Amino acid sequence: MSELSRPVAVVNLGLQGFCDELRAQGVPAIQVDWRPPAGGDAELIHRLTLLQDARVEAANAATVKRMLESRAVWVDVARALEAIPGLEPHTILHAGPPLAYDEMCEPQRRAIEGAALFEGLIAAPEELRPRLRRREILLRPNYELGSVGAMTGVISPSMPVLVTENVTFGNRTWATFNEGKGNVIWMGAYDEATLERLRWIQDVLGPTVREAVRQSPQGLDVFQVISEGVQMGDEVHARSAACTLLLQRWLVPLLLRTGAPTDKLRSVVEFIGGNNHSFLSLTISACKVAADAGHGIPHATVVTGMSRNGVDFALRVGGAQGWFVAPTAPMDEAIYYSGYSAADAAGDIGDSAIIETAGLGGMVIGAAPSISSFVGGGMRRSREAMETMRALSAGSNPRFAPAAVDHLQPAVGIDLRQVVRLGTTPIIDTGVLHKASGVGQIGTGIARAPLEVFRRALRGFPLPTEVAP
Amino acid sequence: MSELSRPVAVVNLGLQGFCDELRAQGVPAIQVDWRPPAGGDAELIHRLTLLQDARVEAANAATVKRMLESRAVWVDVARALEAIPGLEPHTILHAGPPLAYDEMCEPQRRAIEGAALFEGLIAAPEELRPRLRRREILLRPNYELGSVGAMTGVISPSMPVLVTENVTFGNRTWATFNEGKGNVIWMGAYDEATLERLRWIQDVLGPTVREAVRQSPQGLDVFQVISEGVQMGDEVHARSAACTLLLQRWLVPLLLRTGAPTDKLRSVVEFIGGNNHSFLSLTISACKVAADAGHGIPHATVVTGMSRNGVDFALRVGGAQGWFVAPTAPMDEAIYYSGYSAADAAGDIGDSAIIETAGLGGMVIGAAPSISSFVGGGMRRSREAMETMRALSAGSNPRFAPAAVDHLQPAVGIDLRQVVRLGTTPIIDTGVLHKASGVGQIGTGIARAPLEVFRRALRGFPLPTEVAP
Repeated sequence: MSELSRPVAVVNLGLQGFCDELRAQGVPAIQVDWRPPAGGDAELIHRLTLLQDARVEAANAATVKRMLESRAVWVDVARALEAIPGLEPHTILHAGPPLAYDEMCEPQRRAIEGAALFEGLIAAPEELRPRLRRREILLRPNYELGSVGAMTGVISPSMPVLVTENVTFGNRTWATFNEGKGNVIWMGAYDEATLERLRWIQDVLGPTVREAVRQSPQGLDVFQVISEGVQMGDEVHARSAACTLLLQRWLVPLLLRTGAPTDKLRSVVEFIGGNNHSFLSLTISACKVAADAGHGIPHATVVTGMSRNGVDFALRVGGAQGWFVAPTAPMDEAIYYSGYSAADAAGDIGDSAIIETAGLGGMVIGAAPSISSFVGGGMRRSREAMETMRALSAGSNPRFAPAAVDHLQPAVGIDLRQVVRLGTTPIIDTGVLHKASGVGQIGTGIARAPLEVFRRALRGFPLPTEVAP
Repeated sequence: MSELSRPVAVVNLGLQGFCDELRAQGVPAIQVDWRPPAGGDAELIHRLTLLQDARVEAANAATVKRMLESRAVWVDVARALEAIPGLEPHTILHAGPPLAYDEMCEPQRRAIEGAALFEGLIAAPEELRPRLRRREILLRPNYELGSVGAMTGVISPSMPVLVTENVTFGNRTWATFNEGKGNVIWMGAYDEATLERLRWIQDVLGPTVREAVRQSPQGLDVFQVISEGVQMGDEVHARSAACTLLLQRWLVPLLLRTGAPTDKLRSVVEFIGGNNHSFLSLTISACKVAADAGHGIPHATVVTGMSRNGVDFALRVGGAQGWFVAPTAPMDEAIYYSGYSAADAAGDIGDSAIIETAGLGGMVIGAAPSISSFVGGGMRRSREAMETMRALSAGSNPRFAPAAVDHLQPAVGIDLRQVVRLGTTPIIDTGVLHKASGVGQIGTGIARAPLEVFRRALRGFPLPTEVAP
């Protein structure tokens, strides 16, 4: 019996067509979905080979360990100018990497305009550009000062900020109170009522909540709340409804200890309770202090920051200096409010991708069955998405394993190497802003980090041979 | 070719062994898990045949429609004696069907003893039996007066009760505030602190919450809250954590309108917020008014009440008079607190099976992934349990379809005919009480309604031919 006349069974790598052809001829064939690593790019493959190194594995494990050991506690409320080191008056902070005002997306420009009016840095919108040109108003990214902001991410000096401390490692971050829905600067929309609300947040909400938080001997353990929330339908990026309720359960008795009059307390309780995103400021803060604690270990290829401004996407990697930048990606899947479509959408925006960086949001999408429709196909598809994210990552987190997906542990510690090797990028749950009209949010959905920024990061990543021991 | 020499394929009904045998001999065979209907009981089969009737189908559909159309609103808090029509002083109400004191299970006896002490009907436990004998203290089941109580279900005249109205049909029910954990009479345990807590509930909690509820123009739409809670991990029988948080979100601003001093408000908020079962009183109330509204349609074989006292299980059917009674069933699956086992468990107890009657609890167990372990095998097994319950029922409820099981609609309207035909009974999520030691709750799990009570109900059910048109 010659080799060729013996029965054959085929394992086909790559193009599906070959496999179909063989099967049509009655030849047993198994299809393997194989693609060349890193899209076949020789330099990237070479770098990936050099990064298959025990020092990298150890550094990544140490990075994930520091993230998981981080205990993030909401400890105080303070005025941004006094709380954020390095923040100067006449400075407005924003989400994502630095960008000239005229290059920013319109929602971010509007948010900055609103904040400048709120601060009294300008008396009318047309004063903004001249004052920016004269450097009388400065724009800086949150990530340069250690603060963090959802969507447009705008923080100005008079705004009260929530102070969150990583009590394990001692680092802190700062985020504004979430403004809620409608015309709100975090969504890139404002009117006179918006500015009035910002003043109320400054004069009533901030001071009252500060007194309440100071009634607590230990502050609020944010990841503890999240560990309950992921069992109650929150993936804590697109949905924070349960965590916001748990926040209220903690905060209300403290508010009742402050001695503030009940009508003031009621306005505070109704504002926080009336906005399912109230907890989001604490989530981004906790994830920020965890990711910051994990950053800076030589050789680590684990991602320690993802941040977008609607134009550019910035990526920070544990063992590399600075941030890598590439154009932001379009929305992958989104559900738009009635009357809007993908054509109306601004680019993916916000520092809130720190949530996925720390292993929540898209990493744990199965925790939020009510938003699993964004990945299509219901709970099975949500599990698959979580498995795919795990394939990109250096670790997983037993603390946030949702019962709804039979306690499947979400990924934590996105590994730059795996993203480039597989050509698959992290998913990010997020809101969608209108690109131009100033109407603010027009939908909710899934964005994908752009592959290009990971490829650039890998090209710029210091190889083990280049790093002093 | 003779008949016998032709190849055969077999469909085997009933005993698996025949099928295995055939397969062992190389005969293709399909096993059908068939059992004779109603266990082969000729009288029951005859009755089932007569009940395959368009009038029954129409009556069942009407029953389910009335249940689903019921809008249950928490409208007030009142003293039991003033709120519950027919309740007399010196009367103590309890869960399940009527039973002589000495025949009751020990947790229920202890709860009655505690309530009698709280009411001042006795000054010491040893006075209880003599006073019961002299009819100076009367015991009556909640269901005779339209009230409802979880576990031991004890309500005494001075206790404040939540008043819930079915605003669609006008009927009402009454339930006590949930006492929480530890030594609590709803779990059949009490000490001096229990009685003190009951006095605080009477003097502070009841009046304060009454004022808050009265601040609300419309009251609280209980099923609306539950429709949110089933997307947040609650099946609302064993777990009400999310609904309790949602209750607080609604109640706190109203409490802040009452003008009560903040220290009193804080004690109320901490009591309600500190007990994940706080919402349970509203769930049993809403389910009670819905089931009551569905009851009484001639020919309906849909179950409109299930109620247990730890000894007996009572069943009410829409088209039949009164309640059918049989011995209560043991726990099916339970997780016991450390140091306890099934041998320590009292029989299944409480009016709370009204929850399953109205299509929640065990019917929607997939809503609560964190307790899906009670049915074993995780989410897949939870879905299967929900499907099995649907096979027993006349309808399903789109309003409570959990995203965690891809919006599978839970069963509503258990059909007596299907239960007897299939020999499969409804599952009931419930707590487990110690049978003797007075320690109260020792576990949580799944009880099964006893088949015998359904068989008795079918024997006693008026056949279409027996009912005047």
